[in-house]
Amino acid sequence: MKKTNPLLIDTGAPWLPIYKEIYSLIEDYERIFIVAHTKPDYDALGSAFGLAKTLEDIFPNKEIVVGGEDHYFYSGKLYPKIETKNNEWFSEKFLGIAVDCANSDRLGDKRVLKGDKVIKIDHHPPVEQYGDVNLVIENMISCAEVIVSLLINYEKFEQFTKDAAIFLFSGVAGDSGRFKYANTSAHTFAVAAELLSTGVDLSKDIYEKMYVQTIGDLKLVSYILNNFIITPKGVAYYVIHDEELVKLGVDPNHAKSKVNMFNDLENVHIWFSVNEDKEDGIWRISLRSKHIPINGVAAKYGGGGHDRASGCQINKLSELEQFVQDLEVLI
Amino acid sequence: MKKTNPLLIDTGAPWLPIYKEIYSLIEDYERIFIVAHTKPDYDALGSAFGLAKTLEDIFPNKEIVVGGEDHYFYSGKLYPKIETKNNEWFSEKFLGIAVDCANSDRLGDKRVLKGDKVIKIDHHPPVEQYGDVNLVIENMISCAEVIVSLLINYEKFEQFTKDAAIFLFSGVAGDSGRFKYANTSAHTFAVAAELLSTGVDLSKDIYEKMYVQTIGDLKLVSYILNNFIITPKGVAYYVIHDEELVKLGVDPNHAKSKVNMFNDLENVHIWFSVNEDKEDGIWRISLRSKHIPINGVAAKYGGGGHDRASGCQINKLSELEQFVQDLEVLI
Repeated sequence: MKKTNPLLIDTGAPWLPIYKEIYSLIEDYERIFIVAHTKPDYDALGSAFGLAKTLEDIFPNKEIVVGGEDHYFYSGKLYPKIETKNNEWFSEKFLGIAVDCANSDRLGDKRVLKGDKVIKIDHHPPVEQYGDVNLVIENMISCAEVIVSLLINYEKFEQFTKDAAIFLFSGVAGDSGRFKYANTSAHTFAVAAELLSTGVDLSKDIYEKMYVQTIGDLKLVSYILNNFIITPKGVAYYVIHDEELVKLGVDPNHAKSKVNMFNDLENVHIWFSVNEDKEDGIWRISLRSKHIPINGVAAKYGGGGHDRASGCQINKLSELEQFVQDLEVLI
Repeated sequence: MKKTNPLLIDTGAPWLPIYKEIYSLIEDYERIFIVAHTKPDYDALGSAFGLAKTLEDIFPNKEIVVGGEDHYFYSGKLYPKIETKNNEWFSEKFLGIAVDCANSDRLGDKRVLKGDKVIKIDHHPPVEQYGDVNLVIENMISCAEVIVSLLINYEKFEQFTKDAAIFLFSGVAGDSGRFKYANTSAHTFAVAAELLSTGVDLSKDIYEKMYVQTIGDLKLVSYILNNFIITPKGVAYYVIHDEELVKLGVDPNHAKSKVNMFNDLENVHIWFSVNEDKEDGIWRISLRSKHIPINGVAAKYGGGGHDRASGCQINKLSELEQFVQDLEVLI
């Protein structure tokens, strides 16, 4: 373990018993399969690849494989493309590690559960503890932060490679809304400092790959600003029909990310976006809140997530009125 | 000096000779006057009040005064209002400290120069070294970061009060665009971690005061999105007439802050906003760039600043064409 910020050591201390179980399992297996949740975001892929790269660095003779789904945009740019293994790979003994995934239903590749042993590493409310070992640190803003803590406190760990630092930083920056959302802590910043100490160029290696706006994005923002609604009680929302996105030339996956536009708006307590998903015949909702926990309402509408950042869905737009009412009751 | 991140100590080490001159001057004087630049921003006021609070904490018997201008919006909310001292105060011996101000012309209260000794603490290119001691660390993203380094390496310093941490954090977050712009470094994050270790609530104590969007702000963004221009070579800009702001109900000071909307835009290398200043009969320009240094052009138009973030002005809108051409030559 190298000379580091004492805060990183102090924060890891209470988790050392679980960390040690994980170190020991990793040492025991020659084949390791790592997977994150479906429809992966920065934290999912950043955690998976950051962990994989670092373990490869510590154990060059182990076979470490990242499975699951690619990101529709960032894979091949910020993250490597995933090469899916055929079933044969899973017939031999391996250790499965699932990252950033609260329940087994959402695993990007469920074959991780075929592992001789399964480790779950996460920061979401622990709805399902599907691992043989479950490391869940809820007050960390990102799973990547959990992984950095796990690795930094490992005696066999020396330092992050630049690649690993880029992956893990993208996870921390992604889930924290670039160091903004609640649960962004002194430890989060200490982790970021540690990752950047590798000599990574924050602008060129990370942000310019993470944050790319197209003219279509600006048009979408403009569309939202012309069409959003704020209720008298302080719920803000917008609805985007599929055909509108086609007109604007914007990928549907991009549309929900704009929900954070309403973060800082005066007198708005809860806000959400409604995006048509024609394929599945539903309307996907990204739900956010300044202080009020909203994951209860999300659960009622077939979803879940964090206290103040959840996802859910409705089947018809006519359900929207009731959904808004359910939120207004909370205010 | 308390147990801290070794990175903070290592980064301060080469500056210790100047730091020690400053410690010694501070110890020598019982009356200290601290001032930042005119039209102060987060980093100006955050640096001034953060330094003042910490010195008050270390030396409760000294008289430490912050002078200069208030911020039109944040003073009284995020920062204390400034009580301007009358000329009599300056007739007795005092130490003057100017923070975040590259040249004496821009000092918020020029009487700081009447100090027995004057210290300049800054991070801008050193166009004028008007201090008896000049501490200028150009590769730090904010003056607040310089001040944290100065204080943390001081043997009489023990810890930041919550108030001081809030002020200094606002400076770091302000000038870095919340940990985004070039020169945001491992040290920047280590400083942020140190400040948050005081137990400050990042959302409630800092961000909710720093980042307040009104409906007027959203309307302004909408207006800009409907009216901005991108030249074929990749210069993006918008012009805001005073009467437009009146129509939108937005404070003119707010308008230039929207220039960062174009930060991440594909194929855009340089971008700027042009804001009418009816009072002074000029058009104020906020100029930004992804990689290309633009402060040379800013200097040509009566301004200056950082490599990739400068300010300047034109007298008539008809000069705009030449201004754009001067920028396009750089691409």
